[in-house]
Amino acid sequence: MSIEDVVAAIAPADPLAREAAQLRQERLTKPPGSLGRLEELSLQVAAIQGTECPVVRGRTVIVAAGDHGVVAQGVTGYPQEVTAQMVLNFLSGGAAVSVMARRAGAKLVIVDAGVATPVPEHPDLRVVGMGRGTADMTHGPAMSREQAEACVLAGVELAREAAEGGADLIGTGDMGIGNTTASSAITAAVTGRSPRETTGRGTGRNDEELAAKAAVVERALAVNRPDAGDGLDILAKVGGFEIGALAGVVLGGAVAQRVVVVDGFISGAAALIAHRLCPTVADYLVASHLSAEAGHRIALAHLGLRPLLDLGMRLGEGTGAVLAMGLVEAAAACLSEMATFDEAGVSGADSGD
Amino acid sequence: MSIEDVVAAIAPADPLAREAAQLRQERLTKPPGSLGRLEELSLQVAAIQGTECPVVRGRTVIVAAGDHGVVAQGVTGYPQEVTAQMVLNFLSGGAAVSVMARRAGAKLVIVDAGVATPVPEHPDLRVVGMGRGTADMTHGPAMSREQAEACVLAGVELAREAAEGGADLIGTGDMGIGNTTASSAITAAVTGRSPRETTGRGTGRNDEELAAKAAVVERALAVNRPDAGDGLDILAKVGGFEIGALAGVVLGGAVAQRVVVVDGFISGAAALIAHRLCPTVADYLVASHLSAEAGHRIALAHLGLRPLLDLGMRLGEGTGAVLAMGLVEAAAACLSEMATFDEAGVSGADSGD
Repeated sequence: MSIEDVVAAIAPADPLAREAAQLRQERLTKPPGSLGRLEELSLQVAAIQGTECPVVRGRTVIVAAGDHGVVAQGVTGYPQEVTAQMVLNFLSGGAAVSVMARRAGAKLVIVDAGVATPVPEHPDLRVVGMGRGTADMTHGPAMSREQAEACVLAGVELAREAAEGGADLIGTGDMGIGNTTASSAITAAVTGRSPRETTGRGTGRNDEELAAKAAVVERALAVNRPDAGDGLDILAKVGGFEIGALAGVVLGGAVAQRVVVVDGFISGAAALIAHRLCPTVADYLVASHLSAEAGHRIALAHLGLRPLLDLGMRLGEGTGAVLAMGLVEAAAACLSEMATFDEAGVSGADSGD
Repeated sequence: MSIEDVVAAIAPADPLAREAAQLRQERLTKPPGSLGRLEELSLQVAAIQGTECPVVRGRTVIVAAGDHGVVAQGVTGYPQEVTAQMVLNFLSGGAAVSVMARRAGAKLVIVDAGVATPVPEHPDLRVVGMGRGTADMTHGPAMSREQAEACVLAGVELAREAAEGGADLIGTGDMGIGNTTASSAITAAVTGRSPRETTGRGTGRNDEELAAKAAVVERALAVNRPDAGDGLDILAKVGGFEIGALAGVVLGGAVAQRVVVVDGFISGAAALIAHRLCPTVADYLVASHLSAEAGHRIALAHLGLRPLLDLGMRLGEGTGAVLAMGLVEAAAACLSEMATFDEAGVSGADSGD
């Protein structure tokens, strides 16, 4: 299967189901509009599932990890081994996303999409095997175009498996020391905004280090000159293996007609790549939260998405996605399970007295 | 037991547990501060429970319903029978809060705190029995001081029962045609802001009706002149039975050292009453969401609370409280269950390479 095949398999969400859901919303026992943004969200889920009574039960978060050659430029305060160490932490249940997923009843799929430090084999670890981290993008492309295509297709397959495994919601999550730098470069390349606007502090940089990080992004873009109209070219030149896999998860989720709950800044960059490859994916995307990372707001605006949560988080891993899944479930369940005025014998506005 | 006894039984949350939790937060496997507001929330829960490893399992939402004599002034578009009809809808599982609570595993306690239309007996309905709705507050006090005290004490008892029944989180919820009008009056009386600022559209008024509603609130305050320093006086003169019961739930939750998750505008007015009776309750309050109802922002600012969610909701019933409970659980669980850097063998910032 090629990326073109995947893109061709993505259909818009169902406008008729959306309309039917809208009519149903108006008959539910509450003042019209009183559930605020949950109502719009419920219509989106209805359109995605093609029914006025959508069901949200199974939920899977796909957490892709990868390393980044650009760390050689001193863009981060953490050593590269942390990527592998955190993969083990995900697997043993000690990371934030592990705890949240356990509490929320979400299944985690942990993916080594190209971690530099060897990660011991583990029955729950999926290895996509793109190599030991990307090349330093300030010297040339982060990866080849073939690698970019391969990691996207691997993500498509992961989403397909999640959907077949019963996931109504597919969340994205990331781990990768250096990946805010790559995401800043992607966000700048796709949106045309300057690296100074799309670059944030990542895991905690001072002002001087932040300026240096933006300069690294600027250099990567100047050296590689990614084609703004070609998502795969951007991914290959300034992306990352885990970001490519997550772009594939977005595409694959749309193919499978599942709600894709997008985590923070890195997942947002992945969604930008997927959106550049196929704008129709926007129908399937729910922005879980607004990251404290500077470029995320720019990415979401480009995608036309409004985040559900704004809690000052900037952790990644899929933590925002897991939190937002509860809101998506509530929105869909209210639409499908609430009584209508007629069913409950409740009077409507100005109908009595 | 008197209100004074209740207030005397409320202790501040534990500052030592909070400090211990802060130290633990810093050792967890994530960049410091990267969970944003969930970190502060986790410290609050730790202080409330008096442990650095707080536990959030059981959750109960107490939904109090009551009617308001002020509906005679034409402040709402719904007939008064809707209060009783919605109580039945809560009991049969068809209301928004019923659906959300079912999905979130929260127990609902439905309380008739003074509904005008007789509600048939039901095994799951708690009847506080304050009478069939309040008097019209534009002609005099909504209730007597004795009634105000009685409904607050009934709420204290409901919170005590919830805590004894295993609730780590106690949520508030309301139902009552006309109760945004009472809440606007309470918010104005407590905060000193004008009724024009504290009065919103409720279940959907046009500009003219909104101005008339603010004028009704103004008249109620002018006729009754509630004593801004006396929470019970405000409740008696311009409050409601369900609002008094919820003020009691706030006080009782603080006595029992439970996290009290406050719903929207009406619950916020109840929290203002409780806070006027005992400012220490603020230690125990979590503001679930920012209601679209105008006065809510004013109430939250007065209480020093920042809402977790901002989804344009304005339904009440406890719907915001149920949604936010998942965030409180996640915050507490991350603090208690995440691995530390040492435990997971993860390198900290700038510790290697």
